[in-house]
Amino acid sequence: MAFLNDHYLKLKAGYLFPEIARRVRRFAEERSELAKSLIRCGIGDVTEPLPPAVIAAMHKAVDELGNQETFRGYGPEQGYEFLRHTIAENDYRKRGLDIADDEIFVSDGSKCDCGNILDIFGHRNRVAVVDPVYPVYVDTNVMAGHTGPADKGGTYEGLLYLPCTKQNGFVPDIPAQQVDLIYLCFPNNPTGSIATREQLSDWVGHALSSQAIILFDAAYEAYITDPEIPHSIFEIPGAKNCAIEFRSFSKNGGFTGVRCAFTVLPKSLVALTSDGEKKALHPLWHRRFSTKFNSVGYPVQRGAEALYTAAGQEEVRCLIRHYLHNAEVLAAALRSTGLEVFGGRNAPYIWVEAPSGYSSWQAFDKILNEIQVVTTPGAGFGAAGESYFRVSAFNSSENAEEAARRFTRLSW
Amino acid sequence: MAFLNDHYLKLKAGYLFPEIARRVRRFAEERSELAKSLIRCGIGDVTEPLPPAVIAAMHKAVDELGNQETFRGYGPEQGYEFLRHTIAENDYRKRGLDIADDEIFVSDGSKCDCGNILDIFGHRNRVAVVDPVYPVYVDTNVMAGHTGPADKGGTYEGLLYLPCTKQNGFVPDIPAQQVDLIYLCFPNNPTGSIATREQLSDWVGHALSSQAIILFDAAYEAYITDPEIPHSIFEIPGAKNCAIEFRSFSKNGGFTGVRCAFTVLPKSLVALTSDGEKKALHPLWHRRFSTKFNSVGYPVQRGAEALYTAAGQEEVRCLIRHYLHNAEVLAAALRSTGLEVFGGRNAPYIWVEAPSGYSSWQAFDKILNEIQVVTTPGAGFGAAGESYFRVSAFNSSENAEEAARRFTRLSW
Repeated sequence: MAFLNDHYLKLKAGYLFPEIARRVRRFAEERSELAKSLIRCGIGDVTEPLPPAVIAAMHKAVDELGNQETFRGYGPEQGYEFLRHTIAENDYRKRGLDIADDEIFVSDGSKCDCGNILDIFGHRNRVAVVDPVYPVYVDTNVMAGHTGPADKGGTYEGLLYLPCTKQNGFVPDIPAQQVDLIYLCFPNNPTGSIATREQLSDWVGHALSSQAIILFDAAYEAYITDPEIPHSIFEIPGAKNCAIEFRSFSKNGGFTGVRCAFTVLPKSLVALTSDGEKKALHPLWHRRFSTKFNSVGYPVQRGAEALYTAAGQEEVRCLIRHYLHNAEVLAAALRSTGLEVFGGRNAPYIWVEAPSGYSSWQAFDKILNEIQVVTTPGAGFGAAGESYFRVSAFNSSENAEEAARRFTRLSW
Repeated sequence: MAFLNDHYLKLKAGYLFPEIARRVRRFAEERSELAKSLIRCGIGDVTEPLPPAVIAAMHKAVDELGNQETFRGYGPEQGYEFLRHTIAENDYRKRGLDIADDEIFVSDGSKCDCGNILDIFGHRNRVAVVDPVYPVYVDTNVMAGHTGPADKGGTYEGLLYLPCTKQNGFVPDIPAQQVDLIYLCFPNNPTGSIATREQLSDWVGHALSSQAIILFDAAYEAYITDPEIPHSIFEIPGAKNCAIEFRSFSKNGGFTGVRCAFTVLPKSLVALTSDGEKKALHPLWHRRFSTKFNSVGYPVQRGAEALYTAAGQEEVRCLIRHYLHNAEVLAAALRSTGLEVFGGRNAPYIWVEAPSGYSSWQAFDKILNEIQVVTTPGAGFGAAGESYFRVSAFNSSENAEEAARRFTRLSW
């Protein structure tokens, strides 16, 4: 008699984005004329085509697979050396960070990595997440059995939620209680906040002193334009002994539909066995890849590599400028109507406080009904997101400018 | 203080293929002249280029991602409808099997699926594997904490091993004790054996009566040429209430380096909660994809779809004929030297009994040293594989024919 994983049954049925889709669908059915002019500033998906350097590299790789002489079958499970080397060299060593090629693990997405990383950890860890939070951090801990049930607001027993509020600039305060695994994401999804070098240094210091591990999601690092803001947790001395970094090609190269990302797991990083012995985590993560994964396809890896060529780098800069310009236009429009607006600089997300009296779903509905713009209600990201909404800058210039014009028409 | 997953430490360090690679490397160092003529019949990786239909479809899809009008970002996490529909229609409904589009889950490999499927099961299940066994079934159970430590021979406490011997035709007998999850793989890796309709019916009957679930790995179904042999577990009445099927494009379309596969999880399949309530597994698997995965890239899914076009189907048949012809040539050569040879019909693997007095590693070394052919020692797949070796038919015709000639020169 086979047993299922009961922990899945604790998951709240209504995931944020399906609920948004449901409301948008209903609006489209009831007011089909207005719905024609709908602009989506909700989900964080890129809109611009892949850079030409990527397209050329993928075509070439596809052709190689079509020829006997250049055909390749299974690649290394952790990713091809050409890509691991290119990443380590460009994203780390050229910036003075001592990361070895084999500390880079090429994967099919940061979402996947953030979930899969739990495989190599034990079940006794006390886990801290920020609030508002990218739901994947929470849900994968629920699925792994690290929590109790959720309350009505969707807060799970057994997780420590670290509130991110306008008082702390949406960078969580260091908790008084012991935690073992801490998820941090900067530039942040959903708040668009960034962490300064001092703030990250405090977190690294805390992790080192409490022998905790920081799971650092840097999927949006390419949006950092301020030279003072760290792009990598490994810019902070000591981080190689307390952090794993997650990076993605989704939001710089536009790979959301291509699927390529990577983790950086330093060989110096250790954790405890049940017997209290310290062991390196690197061999476990390496083994997980060997046994449960085969990296991503060869054309995808060649496409990712092309992002690091001179042409690819320029094309990425152009994409980033495009989305950041959208963010600027949208943030200015929202601000002009008297709303309090956060993020949108060094980040593709704008985090807006709804006027007093509006819940985040009420604000969502008002914006949808009155100006036909789809946003994301902050409550969907956690209790501390209540009364906020997120506006994504991932859009065409035309749509972003039109959405901005409509925001200025909105009276609260 | 972060804890690691202790279960990983139970994994045997020397995985089969790295040990083979080590011995081949040493041979190449010591006898560099001879090593130049090395032929690899070891690892089961395809050698022939991707079918032209796939190449064309991938090029087209890459171009779509390079244009504003046709660009796509995130696809559905469970796979694009165009591919799920094509699979369900061609592999199942056209063969009279009632499988719905949304019972197909598109993934990045059967290896990954065979490991990831454990996520949706509880930890109380008694797990049965065959012996010899594809190591991934065992290792992923070890990693999930479903076993005790391994003995010297690599047999893990807590797993039930079902011996596959020449006496039972390498199809396991139904065990007397209760098991909850059973891994079956036909056509089999490594033995090349197939299961008849009667044998599969016995297994399905047993699973239904004991409310067990069969994890059916059909990665090699395309090699079945005998019309009496089932391609899918779902050809057996009742299987939709007791089986999950794993299929792959690796060994039919040659996608080992492209990465695309799928699982079939019927909505009628149930398992027990800890409270003894029956619940469907389909929503759990669906949720796992939504939360921890984003399917594979759009060009990859278009490439897989192209395998089902008329041109694609003919190209796949041509590839299968090629590898099956290699198998025939190799098996005949091995047989001509008096060896007892199994598999190699309806399967790309040949399973050879080493002459009395030879362990499987001794046979491996003899073949490597005397005729410079790399095989896979049966002991690497489990205790019952001892004194066997596997010869893979995945090769060019030229190499397969040369390897066959050399096998005929070998005296035992």
